Amino acid sequence: MNNLSNIKSKLLTEQVQEQIYQYILDRNYQIGARIPNEFELADQFGVGRSTIREAVKLLISRGVLEVRRGSGTYVVSTMPTDMDPLGLWRFEDKMSLALDLANVRMMLEPGIAEMAALNAGEEDIRRLRELCDIVETKILNGSSYVKEDIAFHTCIAECSKNKVVEQLIPVIDTAVLVFVNVTHTKLKEETIQTHRAITNAIAEHDSIGARAAMMMHMTYNREMIRGLLQKQQG
Amino acid sequence: MNNLSNIKSKLLTEQVQEQIYQYILDRNYQIGARIPNEFELADQFGVGRSTIREAVKLLISRGVLEVRRGSGTYVVSTMPTDMDPLGLWRFEDKMSLALDLANVRMMLEPGIAEMAALNAGEEDIRRLRELCDIVETKILNGSSYVKEDIAFHTCIAECSKNKVVEQLIPVIDTAVLVFVNVTHTKLKEETIQTHRAITNAIAEHDSIGARAAMMMHMTYNREMIRGLLQKQQG
Repeated sequence: MNNLSNIKSKLLTEQVQEQIYQYILDRNYQIGARIPNEFELADQFGVGRSTIREAVKLLISRGVLEVRRGSGTYVVSTMPTDMDPLGLWRFEDKMSLALDLANVRMMLEPGIAEMAALNAGEEDIRRLRELCDIVETKILNGSSYVKEDIAFHTCIAECSKNKVVEQLIPVIDTAVLVFVNVTHTKLKEETIQTHRAITNAIAEHDSIGARAAMMMHMTYNREMIRGLLQKQQG
Repeated sequence: MNNLSNIKSKLLTEQVQEQIYQYILDRNYQIGARIPNEFELADQFGVGRSTIREAVKLLISRGVLEVRRGSGTYVVSTMPTDMDPLGLWRFEDKMSLALDLANVRMMLEPGIAEMAALNAGEEDIRRLRELCDIVETKILNGSSYVKEDIAFHTCIAECSKNKVVEQLIPVIDTAVLVFVNVTHTKLKEETIQTHRAITNAIAEHDSIGARAAMMMHMTYNREMIRGLLQKQQG
């Protein structure tokens, strides 16, 4: 294989790896679940079996999949080790982790939205509006919008121009959406409305409005998690 | 070597490694600085040269030291890679990073102190009082209290009983104290007073008082950093 086709094949493997991971999240595969075999995956993503094999190897090295000889390929974690620097996968009670995450977001995200309204530039605002539109369209279509929702909150973090916030928010929000994808199927109307209010307030540099809208967004999420937790505890 | 002496020698290496790292922080060695040679370190810590050599190897693997042949051992980072999961060492402007960290702590730590006042148990409070005493004694002695200060804030995070907070606070506070050890030599009186006020409020389960005292503590720190930043910018 020459150099160029080597690079191309690496890029394809990366891409397919990302697709398989997204597929696991979208179908809500649980830990211990067996994923389709090489033939089916090759068919699903329209690539050769050797590409699937390489992509699966990458997901094994990232702690997501495991191959059991003569049995198949299994999900061992829905959180790649490189995406979980705080090691939150160790906590077994995911509903209780969900509330802890919601409480941390309550403390952080309203203040971040306020900073975003103060510091966002023209280009930031254009990108934020675009992401807000994409999430809205996906919600209305009934598609999964996990990835775009993380991108929306990460964009707000970038608008804040605080370097630590930029590193922190993807970590926290990825944890929320990967571990405890509980609010996504329920809070559709509320998410559309509060995302829009946050976006508009940041665009108008209305820092108090941005803080208040984000607080509302976080409160809807937190209330839903508390409700689920209470139901679970009887 | 039998098994037991093998374990003992490993423990000693670990301990000496920790001591060398602490020595680098305490003496405020900068990146690019050469540390004393094996003979001097062996003398300093009262161990053999082979132990020093093993401990230095560990600090090399953690990204702190580098050996230049025929020249000596140099500091390449004051932050071990395993202690910086957010990769904050990459940001070159440390004073601006200091302000970003201060702003994140402003958002987080008062709420954490509030949760700590609500959720701390008897044993937590005993440990918090102890750490508060240790930090106070070290400040009055003029000793370095970096490590104990991180332990104090980590203890408050543990009192909150929020799993995410427990993971997050050591990361943020270690970054503050390792990258930007600027407030430690100045805010002695203020640190003693506000630490004591935070400890008492948590011990009395006074959540509003704990939030307010932590806000005051964070404000002193942030004001000092802003002052230094303004001086730097002329």
